[in-house]
Amino acid sequence: MDESLQPAWPAGWTRRHLLDLESLSREEIEILLDTALQMKKLTQGCRAKVPLLSGVTTANLFFENSTRTRLSFSLAARRLGADTVDFTASTSSVSKGESLLDTAKTILAMQVDSLIVRHRAPGAPYILADNLDCCVINAGDGPHEHPTQGLLDMLTIREHRPRFEDLTVALVGDIAHSRTARSNIWGLKKLGAHVIVCGPATLVSRQWEKFGVEVAHRLDDILPRCDVLNLLRIQFERQYTRPFPSVHEYALLYAMNRQRMERAKSDILIMAPGPINRGVEITPDVADGPQSVILDQVTNGLAVRMAVLWLTCRVAQQAAV
Amino acid sequence: MDESLQPAWPAGWTRRHLLDLESLSREEIEILLDTALQMKKLTQGCRAKVPLLSGVTTANLFFENSTRTRLSFSLAARRLGADTVDFTASTSSVSKGESLLDTAKTILAMQVDSLIVRHRAPGAPYILADNLDCCVINAGDGPHEHPTQGLLDMLTIREHRPRFEDLTVALVGDIAHSRTARSNIWGLKKLGAHVIVCGPATLVSRQWEKFGVEVAHRLDDILPRCDVLNLLRIQFERQYTRPFPSVHEYALLYAMNRQRMERAKSDILIMAPGPINRGVEITPDVADGPQSVILDQVTNGLAVRMAVLWLTCRVAQQAAV
Amino acid sequence: MDESLQPAWPAGWTRRHLLDLESLSREEIEILLDTALQMKKLTQGCRAKVPLLSGVTTANLFFENSTRTRLSFSLAARRLGADTVDFTASTSSVSKGESLLDTAKTILAMQVDSLIVRHRAPGAPYILADNLDCCVINAGDGPHEHPTQGLLDMLTIREHRPRFEDLTVALVGDIAHSRTARSNIWGLKKLGAHVIVCGPATLVSRQWEKFGVEVAHRLDDILPRCDVLNLLRIQFERQYTRPFPSVHEYALLYAMNRQRMERAKSDILIMAPGPINRGVEITPDVADGPQSVILDQVTNGLAVRMAVLWLTCRVAQQAAV
Repeated sequence: MDESLQPAWPAGWTRRHLLDLESLSREEIEILLDTALQMKKLTQGCRAKVPLLSGVTTANLFFENSTRTRLSFSLAARRLGADTVDFTASTSSVSKGESLLDTAKTILAMQVDSLIVRHRAPGAPYILADNLDCCVINAGDGPHEHPTQGLLDMLTIREHRPRFEDLTVALVGDIAHSRTARSNIWGLKKLGAHVIVCGPATLVSRQWEKFGVEVAHRLDDILPRCDVLNLLRIQFERQYTRPFPSVHEYALLYAMNRQRMERAKSDILIMAPGPINRGVEITPDVADGPQSVILDQVTNGLAVRMAVLWLTCRVAQQAAV
Repeated sequence: MDESLQPAWPAGWTRRHLLDLESLSREEIEILLDTALQMKKLTQGCRAKVPLLSGVTTANLFFENSTRTRLSFSLAARRLGADTVDFTASTSSVSKGESLLDTAKTILAMQVDSLIVRHRAPGAPYILADNLDCCVINAGDGPHEHPTQGLLDMLTIREHRPRFEDLTVALVGDIAHSRTARSNIWGLKKLGAHVIVCGPATLVSRQWEKFGVEVAHRLDDILPRCDVLNLLRIQFERQYTRPFPSVHEYALLYAMNRQRMERAKSDILIMAPGPINRGVEITPDVADGPQSVILDQVTNGLAVRMAVLWLTCRVAQQAAV
Repeated sequence: MDESLQPAWPAGWTRRHLLDLESLSREEIEILLDTALQMKKLTQGCRAKVPLLSGVTTANLFFENSTRTRLSFSLAARRLGADTVDFTASTSSVSKGESLLDTAKTILAMQVDSLIVRHRAPGAPYILADNLDCCVINAGDGPHEHPTQGLLDMLTIREHRPRFEDLTVALVGDIAHSRTARSNIWGLKKLGAHVIVCGPATLVSRQWEKFGVEVAHRLDDILPRCDVLNLLRIQFERQYTRPFPSVHEYALLYAMNRQRMERAKSDILIMAPGPINRGVEITPDVADGPQSVILDQVTNGLAVRMAVLWLTCRVAQQAAV
């Protein structure tokens, strides 16, 4: 390939896994965002492949249903010239009683270089990283972390507001069950933003104050101060008891709608990790309005995943030499 | 690539969607068939890829189960050098309540260029085409249309009978629930063929006469006049009330078998969109006999889809410049 | 491509199908193993693709759930530069009543060159090979044969013990329901090994003695003589009556554990086709111990499948000229 297409190697990057944002330094997060931005520029305009990972095989090892994240990782890998395979639990040897580690080892023995893992158990990707000789990317481990989602949210914010120190970012909704919230909190705090978590007391614990996060239970109280709102999905599939009286009541207190937009800063950024429940956490006019960057998040997800795959695989390749 | 491999651009083609055959002109249908024939010649003999769409990504967005149509579109895209991703409703964010349009927008935001859509709701692909900045190909919208199936049927007929004006084509079976029937009717009428729809009165309405189509309820009445028989599947999965007393009785009146072959023209073409129910609409000796072009239809399907993907993507690319 | 990368063509190979090991000669099995070893060397170190099959399309036609075998065939095909498509029964026209042969013919009509078939009915791949003009690879037909599994087991043995005539190989467990056992028995006997089948009398018939195979019902009786143990999965999904009192009792008599390792030859090879049931047929310390070659089997599976795909496709291509 044309060497000029290759992004410069960032001196500070030494990791061959991406398990969380909690353990990354500010510098490492900035390397990830800078590299993602380069990837975005490389693929924009001309959509030619950037064969930085040709000869590499990545495997999506998804034990929970997902399409958007899995597709995004697959497209990112293929755009880098890598080959990809999908392993989904439902049609696999897992249903024959195989352990997570044995499944992963078997896939690796087929000369796979990078495992992208989604699992309902917090910590599952760490077990793989500790025991296997490959790259491990956490694509969501239960309610714990979803680091590429956190990174794509931050990349999207940075495109519009480059100085995180000046920003107030509110994460609204189901903080208790949200891996997206956790990854955003760790990442945003490291970059210097002021973070507010906002939602019903059943879903937003006061414990978050210990980590330097502001806790709010009424969106209207904090709205005028916010530069960014990240409206999390109500994850009905993760809740075992009903945390609020009705969807209608939730929407009344927390949905972002036209009335609330009028009381918000005029340049507020509206984000949502999707899939969005129109009429629940966000009304259609806001989701499709000029302040919404929801689809930019999806596009940036591709760039972030290209950066993560490249950085981690390259460290692994250099270790193997 | 070798420029000589590139088909000549047909001057009359300006569409970046293929939603139906009803709204196409005769000239446009002929462009599609001519281009498909060129694609067939390019890939025959040597099976090398024809990288007319390298850098392009197509997505199969299938909300109804399908393997043969989905595979055919995937193979067509890959033979043109495009990348493909599959999105199926059952394992996706649709089950989390996402709307069709939001799902499609999310996929597009991953830098997808062409959406190939199958949906149970007639008109679903039009909604996408009206609202999205990408190519939309209708791969079947409920009982409404399935334009690439209509085109591959016509390409198969034309290979054996180039003058449509001289032809009588009968569509036999479940006209009421068949998108294949609708696409064939619009296409064949535009090319000048005489079209008969034939089946039990519960499945074949007299209303079709308004569109210049002959209606028949007994296959034996029309059989000696037919140049082409297209034997549609009884779509048990689309019928809510039993439209005929028994499968046996249906077969007695409408199945193409050896006895009926003897009363048909000796050069009649036997077609079926498949999957065929052997012993219901067609007996094995006829399905596998010398007049059957059923497998030619499948091969032509690949060529038609290559043509459709190339023509529509190329219009979109030129509009983007 | 660089011609030097191309393995030498083995003069004795003339088959375009791989249906079983029973009908292969010793020479043919050795050609397969030698070619697999060359494939392994070609892909090791540098993981560049070896485009021996560019322009070829293979289809996985799997009527039983499988991930590891399907992935292994897909990766093998893609590493040879071939394109692959997956056809799984659950989401396909099979559920609309299509016959096996019609399904296969339809896939072939999309210009597919090689069908890789898994089916619950013994003999299903033979029906396809007899009726279709393509390569057919048996990826498991009920309890009958699974020839690539047999080959990868033999390649793994040969890497450590090149002289099969000196070897005693025991297949332990559910011989009655195991296609892996059958393919191993035919292959190992042809190469001159002494084969023992060992398990409860309900799963291991005395009938095997007719084929020159030793039958044993107690692992401890034969253990000190064995050079290789191949520990088959208890295939709970294939058993209609309970063949032994309890899993605990089975493990007591047949599981390979530390105590039994002490009474085995010090250089014994421990194999298992996987997915393994840890604590049933094998304990974790043995599965992960120094004598275990379980993951080598998986890696060799890729090489064997590359060899099989190349040898069969090449014969088909030469026949077509």
